[in-house]
Amino acid sequence: MNAQLDGLKYDAAGMIPAIVQDHRTGEVLMMAWMNREAVQKTVDTGQTHFFSRSRNRLWLKGESSGHVQRVKSIATDCDQDVLLVKVDQTGAACHDGYYSCFYREYQPGGEWKVVGTKVFDPAKVYT
Amino acid sequence: MNAQLDGLKYDAAGMIPAIVQDHRTGEVLMMAWMNREAVQKTVDTGQTHFFSRSRNRLWLKGESSGHVQRVKSIATDCDQDVLLVKVDQTGAACHDGYYSCFYREYQPGGEWKVVGTKVFDPAKVYT
Repeated sequence: MNAQLDGLKYDAAGMIPAIVQDHRTGEVLMMAWMNREAVQKTVDTGQTHFFSRSRNRLWLKGESSGHVQRVKSIATDCDQDVLLVKVDQTGAACHDGYYSCFYREYQPGGEWKVVGTKVFDPAKVYT
Repeated sequence: MNAQLDGLKYDAAGMIPAIVQDHRTGEVLMMAWMNREAVQKTVDTGQTHFFSRSRNRLWLKGESSGHVQRVKSIATDCDQDVLLVKVDQTGAACHDGYYSCFYREYQPGGEWKVVGTKVFDPAKVYT
């Protein structure tokens, strides 16, 4: 039991969105969902855990790639229904090979433009 | 019609989460939800618009407080189901009077600790 974590507001499916940010540069790396257990595991282990709604299971970020995220701080917002987790990112956050998942930017009248830099080759990491 | 915006993935309720970040400091200010119309209005006006699920209507951020957010860039993630909007924030983002909504930090074994600085008095702004 942890009253501080129980006080968070989870949605109807028991999930809370967690924004992950690089603690040094402030770059936003990804957003994923945590259930109560994932929040607890993240706190207890100091590494981010999420709940995959498509695979219906808890996962440790980096369990396949080794690209774990070491937690530096966890904040919540005014409504206590979103988390902001600052981390030390190993490797890269995005499974597409970019440091941040937010590697595409809106271009008026055009296509989503890739602005991120690829730091690894997914085909070599996820074998 | 805007194929670039139509290509985003909205959830079953037609919503996409939008993370708002200070374009100068990188501070994450808030997360709120946009429907297709809010995304379009944000793009068209250059000011963030969201959809309030509790009030069931579109709103211009700052419509009551004057604390508008001028859009500098809009990015999307690998799954195209989250937006990251970098803004120039007028006043403060949080209706509780803090610059960022993420003004409370997790304290092991304690309470959520206020780490943000209050920049306005909500009682004077929302009259």
